[in-house]
Amino acid sequence: MIFPHTHLSLSGERLTVTYSLGAADLATARQRAEGICLEQTVELPAGLLAQDDLGTQVVGRLEALTPRPNRRFEAVISYASETVGDELTQLLNVVFGNTSMQPAIRVEQLSLPPSLLALFKGARFGQAGLRRLLGVERRPLLCTALKPLGLSAPDLAALARQFALGGIDLIKDDHGLANQSFAPFKDRVQRCAAAVAETHQQTGQLSLYAPNITAGPSRLLDNAWFAKEAGAGAVMITPGLTGLEAIRQLAMDDRFGLPILSHPAFRGTLVIDPEQGMSHGLVYGLLPRLAGADASIYVNFGGRFAFSQADCRAIVEATTAPLGPLPPIFPMPGGGMTLAHLPEMLTFYGREVILLIAGGLYGHGPNLLDNCRQFRAQAEALS
Amino acid sequence: MIFPHTHLSLSGERLTVTYSLGAADLATARQRAEGICLEQTVELPAGLLAQDDLGTQVVGRLEALTPRPNRRFEAVISYASETVGDELTQLLNVVFGNTSMQPAIRVEQLSLPPSLLALFKGARFGQAGLRRLLGVERRPLLCTALKPLGLSAPDLAALARQFALGGIDLIKDDHGLANQSFAPFKDRVQRCAAAVAETHQQTGQLSLYAPNITAGPSRLLDNAWFAKEAGAGAVMITPGLTGLEAIRQLAMDDRFGLPILSHPAFRGTLVIDPEQGMSHGLVYGLLPRLAGADASIYVNFGGRFAFSQADCRAIVEATTAPLGPLPPIFPMPGGGMTLAHLPEMLTFYGREVILLIAGGLYGHGPNLLDNCRQFRAQAEALS
Repeated sequence: MIFPHTHLSLSGERLTVTYSLGAADLATARQRAEGICLEQTVELPAGLLAQDDLGTQVVGRLEALTPRPNRRFEAVISYASETVGDELTQLLNVVFGNTSMQPAIRVEQLSLPPSLLALFKGARFGQAGLRRLLGVERRPLLCTALKPLGLSAPDLAALARQFALGGIDLIKDDHGLANQSFAPFKDRVQRCAAAVAETHQQTGQLSLYAPNITAGPSRLLDNAWFAKEAGAGAVMITPGLTGLEAIRQLAMDDRFGLPILSHPAFRGTLVIDPEQGMSHGLVYGLLPRLAGADASIYVNFGGRFAFSQADCRAIVEATTAPLGPLPPIFPMPGGGMTLAHLPEMLTFYGREVILLIAGGLYGHGPNLLDNCRQFRAQAEALS
Repeated sequence: MIFPHTHLSLSGERLTVTYSLGAADLATARQRAEGICLEQTVELPAGLLAQDDLGTQVVGRLEALTPRPNRRFEAVISYASETVGDELTQLLNVVFGNTSMQPAIRVEQLSLPPSLLALFKGARFGQAGLRRLLGVERRPLLCTALKPLGLSAPDLAALARQFALGGIDLIKDDHGLANQSFAPFKDRVQRCAAAVAETHQQTGQLSLYAPNITAGPSRLLDNAWFAKEAGAGAVMITPGLTGLEAIRQLAMDDRFGLPILSHPAFRGTLVIDPEQGMSHGLVYGLLPRLAGADASIYVNFGGRFAFSQADCRAIVEATTAPLGPLPPIFPMPGGGMTLAHLPEMLTFYGREVILLIAGGLYGHGPNLLDNCRQFRAQAEALS
C-alpha cells in the first residue's frame, strides 16, 4: 500500500445523504452508489485503500439501496462528520462536489448529526425573532422590492418611503441592484435607509430596509457594515453568487446582528431537472436555514416560474421542520405574484410566511400607496 | 406611469449573451426571449415602463432569434454594460440570475465589450506567466493532488516531498482537504510548503504547492495570506462554493501575487444537461478566465465523468481564444486520468495544457517516485 496504515480518532457521528440515481439495473446502481462513496471523500479507487480507519470510516458508507420507478434508485449514504470539518463549503463538497459532474444523480435529503447542527447553528432571528423585531404577532409579513434597475438613488428612496407609508414590513432591493452608476450602493443604501427611518419617526410604521449586499468576499463584508451603519434594518444575499458561508459569517457575528434574506438567483439549474441536482427543499430550505438566513426567497407556484406546489411545500417543510436547536425560518415565496394570488397563497401557506409581491404591487393600480394599503388590508383580513 | 421619466447617460457599450431555449414555435420563443430581456434587468412587465432610456436601454434587447433543430431557438440578447456595474456577481446575475429558474434555457455564449474586459482583466500569470514562473518552456505542465482525506499533515507532506522529487510542477491539495481534524489547514499548509521548499533547495526541482483555500469570505482571505506566508507557490479555489469574485479579488491584489487554480466542483449541474444551465466553455473556460484563474481544472473525456470531447474542446477554446487584453490560461483536464491516457491527451491538447493525474498516479505502480518520473518522462517524450 502506498498509504501508511491510518488509525483515526472518530466520534462515530455521521451525516446521511439520500441520493436518487438513474441506472439500468440494481448492480449498476450499486456500482454508482459505491462510486459516490469514494468520489465524495477519498477520491481514490477502493483497491488503493487498506481496511483501516481510512478505508472503512472516512470513505462514505452505503447504508441502503432501494429501487424506485423508472430505473431510478434511492441510495442512502453516510459520511463521518469529521469529513466536513467546520465549514459549509466543505459540507456541500462532501454532499455533492464532484458528483455534481455525474449525470442523473440528485441529492434528495440531508440529515446532520448533533455535532454539525451545533456548528451550523442557523438563524439569529428566525420566524419568532423577526416577528418580535417587527412587532407583528399574527399576520403574514409583507415584503416588496425597490426597482427597476436604472432608477436613481433618490427615486428609489422615494419608492421606499411610499412602501413604508403603505405598511410594508420588509422593503428589499431588487437583487439586480448592485453597485451600478445609476444608483451606487452607498448612495442608495443611505438614502433608502433614511427614507424608511424618517417614515418610522413620522408615522410609527416600522419597516426594515434590506439592501442587496451580494458581492465578492471583502466587498460583501464592507457592504454589510456600511448598511448597518446607514441604518438598514436587514440585508439580502444571493448565496448562488457568494457561497452560503457569506450568510453564515454574518449570521454568527454578534456585533452585526441584522436579519438576513437569502435570494434564489443563479441556483435554479440546481433544482429544475427532477433527475439531477439537488431537491428544492435542500437548496431553498435546509441550506439557507443552516447558513443562518432568517427568510428564504424562492419563486412561488402559479407565477412566471416553474416551481410546483409540491416543490413549494417541500421548501416550507425544510424551513420549518424540527431541526435540533435551529429555529424555523420564513419561507418567502415571490416571482410574479399579484394581489389576486393572495387568497391562494394564504390558504397554502397560512400565517407563517413572508408574502413577496413586487412587480404585481407596482402594477396593481396607478397609486402605489393605495396598492400597498390594499396588500396590507388583504393580508390582515385573510389571516 | 409609476416611475419618473428617466434620462440616463449610457456609453452605448453592450454585452451580448447567446441563449438556446426550448419553445413550441417561433412566437412562443419570441415571448420567452422577450421575457428574458425583462427578467434579467428591470424585473417588471413591459407595460409598466415608459419608452424612455429605462424602457429602451436598460431592458435587454433581443438582437436575433433563430430556429434550431428539435424545437430549440437561439436568442441573442444584448444588455447595457452599465447594468453589470463593477462586479462578476452582478455579471452572472444579468446573464442568468433569475432565468436559471426557468426550464429549457441554456446560456451558450457571452461576449463582453472593451469596458468590461478592462474591468475583469483576467489572470496575473496565464499560460506564459506560469511557464516563466516554473521555468518550463515547451512541455505540458504536470499536476497531481495530495490525498486522501483522512491522512495526517505529516503524511501529506511526505507525499508532497515524493511528488516534488519526482518532478511534478504543481502539487495541489485534493479539493476535499479543507480544515478537518485529520490535517488542519494551517498545519497541513506549513508542512507541505516546507517539504516542497526543502526539495527545491536540495535538488533544484521547482514545484509549486497549491493548497485548497476554499472557505467563507473572511476565512478564504485569511487562508490565502497564511498560505503565502507559509511559502505556498499557488492556491486553489472552488468558485462553485465561494463565488467567482473570490478568485478575482486575489488575482487583482498585487501584494498577493500567487497563481490561482480554479476547481470545478459543485458546478456540474450547471453544464450537464445540454438544454439547460450554461455551456462548458462558459463555466469552465470563460468565467474562471475573466475572474483571474491561471488554470481551470475540469473533468476530461474518457475518465470517470461525463464530459465529451466536444465539451473539452469548447473549454480549451474559451481558455485560450483571443479576448481583449486577457492572457490565455491553462486548461487543466483531470478526473480519472491515468498514465495510459497520456498519448490521447497529448494528441488532443498539444503542449499548452496542465495534465492532472492524481488517483491514476498513486495507482500506477507500488513506488510513487517511480510513477512520477514515468509521468514526467512520458510527457517530455510525447511533447
